[in-house]
Amino acid sequence: MRDVAIIGAGQTEVGEHWGISLRHLALGAVQAAMADAGVMNADALYVGNMLSGELEGQEHLGALVADFAGLRGIEAFKIEAACGSGAAALRIGYIAVAGGLADIVVVAGVEKMTDTLGADTTAALAMASDADYEAAHGASFVTINALLMRRYMHEYGYKHQDFAPFAVNAHRNAVNNPYAMFRFPVSAERFGKARMISDPINLLDSSPICDGAAAVVLAPADQAGNRSMAAVRIAASTVGTDTLAVHDRREPLVLAGARLSAQRAYDQAGVGPRDIDLFELHDAFSIMAALSLEAAGFADRGKGLALALDGEIGIDGEIPVTTMGGLKARGHPVGATGIYQVVEVVQQLRGLAGENQVANAELGMAQNIGGSGATVVTHVLERI
Amino acid sequence: MRDVAIIGAGQTEVGEHWGISLRHLALGAVQAAMADAGVMNADALYVGNMLSGELEGQEHLGALVADFAGLRGIEAFKIEAACGSGAAALRIGYIAVAGGLADIVVVAGVEKMTDTLGADTTAALAMASDADYEAAHGASFVTINALLMRRYMHEYGYKHQDFAPFAVNAHRNAVNNPYAMFRFPVSAERFGKARMISDPINLLDSSPICDGAAAVVLAPADQAGNRSMAAVRIAASTVGTDTLAVHDRREPLVLAGARLSAQRAYDQAGVGPRDIDLFELHDAFSIMAALSLEAAGFADRGKGLALALDGEIGIDGEIPVTTMGGLKARGHPVGATGIYQVVEVVQQLRGLAGENQVANAELGMAQNIGGSGATVVTHVLERI
Repeated sequence: MRDVAIIGAGQTEVGEHWGISLRHLALGAVQAAMADAGVMNADALYVGNMLSGELEGQEHLGALVADFAGLRGIEAFKIEAACGSGAAALRIGYIAVAGGLADIVVVAGVEKMTDTLGADTTAALAMASDADYEAAHGASFVTINALLMRRYMHEYGYKHQDFAPFAVNAHRNAVNNPYAMFRFPVSAERFGKARMISDPINLLDSSPICDGAAAVVLAPADQAGNRSMAAVRIAASTVGTDTLAVHDRREPLVLAGARLSAQRAYDQAGVGPRDIDLFELHDAFSIMAALSLEAAGFADRGKGLALALDGEIGIDGEIPVTTMGGLKARGHPVGATGIYQVVEVVQQLRGLAGENQVANAELGMAQNIGGSGATVVTHVLERI
Repeated sequence: MRDVAIIGAGQTEVGEHWGISLRHLALGAVQAAMADAGVMNADALYVGNMLSGELEGQEHLGALVADFAGLRGIEAFKIEAACGSGAAALRIGYIAVAGGLADIVVVAGVEKMTDTLGADTTAALAMASDADYEAAHGASFVTINALLMRRYMHEYGYKHQDFAPFAVNAHRNAVNNPYAMFRFPVSAERFGKARMISDPINLLDSSPICDGAAAVVLAPADQAGNRSMAAVRIAASTVGTDTLAVHDRREPLVLAGARLSAQRAYDQAGVGPRDIDLFELHDAFSIMAALSLEAAGFADRGKGLALALDGEIGIDGEIPVTTMGGLKARGHPVGATGIYQVVEVVQQLRGLAGENQVANAELGMAQNIGGSGATVVTHVLERI
């Protein structure tokens, strides 16, 4: 097995892009990543995407994006794992390069969720849950997360206001990220007054519906030196899965798939949570941020929120999270999110995160979650 | 790179299964393949599927099928490349095992196209074409293939009736396949009188809308001997892509992606068309069968149909095709088709094809096409 490096990274601004089509979004990210890597061609392209069929009437994104990006003829597929599709595509690209079946692989994540063909985006997102046993009974992703959040508050004695630090931290960091959707700060007071979406989840507990694309270029690490001064090694690439339906889980407040995925990542990289300098977690809702911190071993059960309340999730904290805004404030174009997270970790490890730079960042982790924790893909990246 | 073997294969009967859900279809195939392989667990599961979101309101099939099949926790993704999704998933499984990142991988293809949520199946299939430049203007897959067929007849001087041998051969072979949807013969006369669908394509030029699932289990070839007496080696696994829109191609009657994919397969396996004992081609429409024979090098340009007219595509012919019924008569549950093709080649190489057995079959090829030839995945299998 070969060591794999990320030799190029690119992203487009997250937002409501009514004037930019799905293929143009993907093109922007792929071109940026390839230019950054200094490559003109690739052996394969894997595209992470969840909703293009339902919302844009377009499947078959692999060949489509390959052709549009000037890569006609190469191997190209779409990889889908709900909101974990981006990192799932990266995992496939990693397998191809690590195993020696490809040298240069482009991995893109793209999602267009606004200006759609008329399909309901919230209903489309529910396709990540169990269609027969959750969605068919009216459960959306917001309501499922609301149940988890309520249970968390009940079980561990937290108030809703205790979740404020996640939104406050994410928005503070997004101010300095030119690719973020919400570049403004929010106060804990504003969090407390935000409009209710699905009790107890309010607007500032929730990531937005938006459009975006991000991409990375992979190569064998021993060839990275010739191509880029700022390559980053993939120290771990792992997956853990769980039931789609939350009611099928023995302990709904434990993300077993995330725990499995993180443990496998620590094993592969030969590190533990204490070695991680920053953690791009999957804060689709603030409850997911708390559960992720616990599942990944940064806090004991029920203590993920305490970590945030103690101020340890900021840039200078014990474990900085959502350092460029996270899903909450950078935005959550679902199939692209996993790649945005990785691009941001690369920025940090390259020392290019500007005012949000985590000092001496050497090891960063990105964790992308599909559904309510049914597919969890974890990558540990290391500064070379 | 390690040699990869197929150590187990399973399939379910293709048909209109109003009483069987998507997950139960997949389960049947996965269980059959795992039982055939004699394995109880796997390192990863890749699911080929195109339409589950649009037609069943269910994405996230990787984790769903893994959990339902008793494999909760393992790596699992859905792989999509339109009607080429099945073989695309196999290609990913091949990469994982060949590269040494997994030992036992289950690859399933599943599609449920009948008893859907109300979405229009023909419209859903058009998501494999270019949504902005083909589907949006009213082109369906049938009409696109009708244009190609008309052009082929014009260019090379064939009559519609000349295409009869493809349907006649497919139906004749399906009679002996208990998993086939249409187990009855059709005559050339009946072909000529079949109901028109989209001139010149008639009902017997077209594969049916149906449900089905098939699966294979992969392992390193050097471990295959311990597990199964009837393993088959994957001698080549390759992909070629082209434009989604047919009007973007310089020569619409040349499947450039198929040509690329086949050439790469011959190169990898170190063989040529003359060495192939049977060819499971992608006869979604009879015109595609003719174009595939040409792109894969079995006939010169414009001569694919002549090969069929000369009687060379039958079980005893120069190049037997659709030996168990093909897409036309076994059926074409789109995301599952690529795996059905491979399962049938395995049957032939194991000598288990009964009355349809190709004598001394040692090398079989399966070619799965997404869209109008935009993604083409080719596998060459060899009897060990």
